[in-house]
Amino acid sequence: MSDFSSRLKTFSTEFNNKLLSLFDKPNGAERQVVEAMAYSVGNGGKRLRPYLITQTAQLFNISPDQSFPVAAALECLHTYSLIHDDLPAMDNDDLRRGKPTCHKQFDEATAILAGDGLLTYAFELITSDNNNLSAAIRCRLANMLARGAGAFDGMIAGQMLDLLSEKNINSQNPEPIIKHIEEMKTGRLLCFACEAGAVLGNAPQDKYQALSTYARKIGISFQITDDILDVEGSTEQMGKTLGKDAAQNKLTFVRLYGLSQAKAIASQLIAESHDALSIFGAEATDLHNLADFILSRQH
Amino acid sequence: MSDFSSRLKTFSTEFNNKLLSLFDKPNGAERQVVEAMAYSVGNGGKRLRPYLITQTAQLFNISPDQSFPVAAALECLHTYSLIHDDLPAMDNDDLRRGKPTCHKQFDEATAILAGDGLLTYAFELITSDNNNLSAAIRCRLANMLARGAGAFDGMIAGQMLDLLSEKNINSQNPEPIIKHIEEMKTGRLLCFACEAGAVLGNAPQDKYQALSTYARKIGISFQITDDILDVEGSTEQMGKTLGKDAAQNKLTFVRLYGLSQAKAIASQLIAESHDALSIFGAEATDLHNLADFILSRQH
Repeated sequence: MSDFSSRLKTFSTEFNNKLLSLFDKPNGAERQVVEAMAYSVGNGGKRLRPYLITQTAQLFNISPDQSFPVAAALECLHTYSLIHDDLPAMDNDDLRRGKPTCHKQFDEATAILAGDGLLTYAFELITSDNNNLSAAIRCRLANMLARGAGAFDGMIAGQMLDLLSEKNINSQNPEPIIKHIEEMKTGRLLCFACEAGAVLGNAPQDKYQALSTYARKIGISFQITDDILDVEGSTEQMGKTLGKDAAQNKLTFVRLYGLSQAKAIASQLIAESHDALSIFGAEATDLHNLADFILSRQH
Repeated sequence: MSDFSSRLKTFSTEFNNKLLSLFDKPNGAERQVVEAMAYSVGNGGKRLRPYLITQTAQLFNISPDQSFPVAAALECLHTYSLIHDDLPAMDNDDLRRGKPTCHKQFDEATAILAGDGLLTYAFELITSDNNNLSAAIRCRLANMLARGAGAFDGMIAGQMLDLLSEKNINSQNPEPIIKHIEEMKTGRLLCFACEAGAVLGNAPQDKYQALSTYARKIGISFQITDDILDVEGSTEQMGKTLGKDAAQNKLTFVRLYGLSQAKAIASQLIAESHDALSIFGAEATDLHNLADFILSRQH
């Protein structure tokens, strides 16, 4: 394992412990929904989004402790989106990272509520007055998160468009559609992660922009490699059913460009993400490493 | 129609227009989720929660324009809870206020996303910097809303307990269970509505407490009259399928106390809600009226 992979793993382990400690369960039967929330939140993942927040905030001397509530909020929100995406009415997935999806482990009603609960909790965490952040910063971050995750042109809009994309797959010009889907569905929250670090640190505009550009580049690249792994990855490593995109006739980057061109584009985007970081000089080493990690990941 | 009913109706009409104007639709196919959100938000209702925010804020000279984003946020959040409650995996309702429920009008996936979208939008609205409110107040309100709507001991916890209540209906002591359900499921957001007015107006602690007590009293009374109307109301006036509580073997106040005692308790709670308002003297006339309206409503 490379030094960076090992640092990412250490981060992820520590972050998991801290995150799971937030899920104090009520005593009554209603604890079931909190158990379902903790079950899904605890189900691994690389914690890329929290890592991005932590790293970008550190560029401006904001400690991991101070950025933690924001990182935890984003991970809760990301987890809610996975729980709802997995539902029978949506992607109908039984496995997530090798474990039963929330509605399989509990039931559908509990999974809907667990998703709702995590989305709601994200906003409780990010607005909580417990991390020495000004109300102005907390409020701005909450508003950014809501817009990035929202239905007008955020994550939910992306998911809606994705669900409808089968209808557009034979469109004469599918490229802008798929880019728009991924920009909204995956890109907005990765952007939030990097921009949040800048907001936490009261970054000057040029550094804010640099992080925003970096986020957009790694975001599309992340989605392209996801599509590639759906074709080339191993079910064991990915912990989910592969080949689903093709089976569901989904509009993917691989379908659009073919495997080898998709790989070339992902590689080019990562090169551009490195360029975007130049303003930080040697300070952004692990953001550079993360970009390379996204390109070379096997899961 | 009494003067008060007519004022409430005027409020509701004006509020609806202003609320619906928020739902600018994107141009792409993703507009479907925003259309579903607007469809459900536009489907009438008495707008009691926004009315409570507006009225309680006015006690402290906060204008309806200033409190509007908070009122709109709460109504969006309330509407999301109805959309998700109506889903097949939850209460499986086809009608809501005489019109097809969201998943019937659109489809299940769109309804899940529309609910998610409204929940998310609630937090966008309440944190938006567009109503001359300080970031400290907006952030505090967003945090209160998240806790009141949340899974630990808020609305989602109430819904979870309600879904599990069939299992507890034969409990030796069902009274605390049903009270706990309703306190969380309905009460928390009614409390938020009244407490938000106090927070918006920087109210002194005794007035904040008075509004909080008022909210708790009318909240339980509201739920008891709801249970009574499920037995005695007309489907036409209620705009939904009645008698469902009994059919679904639900634990209700009517089942617990019987009709006549349930009515007596509701009446007693409304009397106590009047008492709670005494600190405001003649200024709280329409909050008194609203309490009476809750007791006498036919729908």
